[in-house]
Amino acid sequence: MRARDLAEEYPSVTLGSDILEAARLLAGGRLPGLLVVDERGGPQAVLPASHLVKLLVPGYVIEDPALARVVDEQHADRLCQALAGRPVSDALPPEHDRHKPPTADAEDTALEVAALMARERSPLVVVTEGGGDEVPARGAPPRMLGVITAPHLLDRLLGVT
Amino acid sequence: MRARDLAEEYPSVTLGSDILEAARLLAGGRLPGLLVVDERGGPQAVLPASHLVKLLVPGYVIEDPALARVVDEQHADRLCQALAGRPVSDALPPEHDRHKPPTADAEDTALEVAALMARERSPLVVVTEGGGDEVPARGAPPRMLGVITAPHLLDRLLGVT
Repeated sequence: MRARDLAEEYPSVTLGSDILEAARLLAGGRLPGLLVVDERGGPQAVLPASHLVKLLVPGYVIEDPALARVVDEQHADRLCQALAGRPVSDALPPEHDRHKPPTADAEDTALEVAALMARERSPLVVVTEGGGDEVPARGAPPRMLGVITAPHLLDRLLGVT
Repeated sequence: MRARDLAEEYPSVTLGSDILEAARLLAGGRLPGLLVVDERGGPQAVLPASHLVKLLVPGYVIEDPALARVVDEQHADRLCQALAGRPVSDALPPEHDRHKPPTADAEDTALEVAALMARERSPLVVVTEGGGDEVPARGAPPRMLGVITAPHLLDRLLGVT
């Protein structure tokens, strides 16, 4: 069982996608997070659902929970409007501070993927071809085959017995 | 929109549940994590899927990734057997080190729940009745009504506009 056999499609957005659209995609699919890729399809970050919730809540409410109770529902309705038109990159740390999702090579074994996931405490691992630990061929960046989520990997590891 | 209206059922296991059964429940439902409750139904922890993966991988493989490649598939088949019969409590830190999931009162507003989730960076919030910030009535612990996940809360907040 190799990483290429375990990789699945996973909803992703680009750095330039609208945050509100990204939030709708995540909410509609009841996903714990979204994969963010750059313009060339290179994985940049995982955007957790709780972080999108945080973007919806005004800073003064997060700092003073008592204020949350007094903001009325009509005001809450307008929270989402604050996100409209802003790109996903606004929701991420600057590029040099981004924690990129761990990446496995297509030929890695299931146990290598599991060890990587365990070490990084990551809910998902990105599977690429033509990259991995080796220097990618000049001009040809590693190609993303898909994603392996922790519950999917568990399902396959448990199914083996 | 109050926390009681947002609360949903969510798969949970007890501290005494078999870890392997817990892993199967999580894998089958493709859940990012499981809620762990004590014998009285009190929320104790969220067990992330990546942590269950970590339990499957022998420590020497996590410390030395090169070993993961040389462990053959037949050996990998036996990984799950190491978990069978062990209780979920073995997968958690000792009680005084456990990070209990954040708890909202049934009467909290959606914005209070969002602020709590944002502050705690938690993928879910437990909703209880008869507890909250107040001292619970003697002998009557707060009753858990359900859970609000981040994508569900986003869905409801976005649906409002």
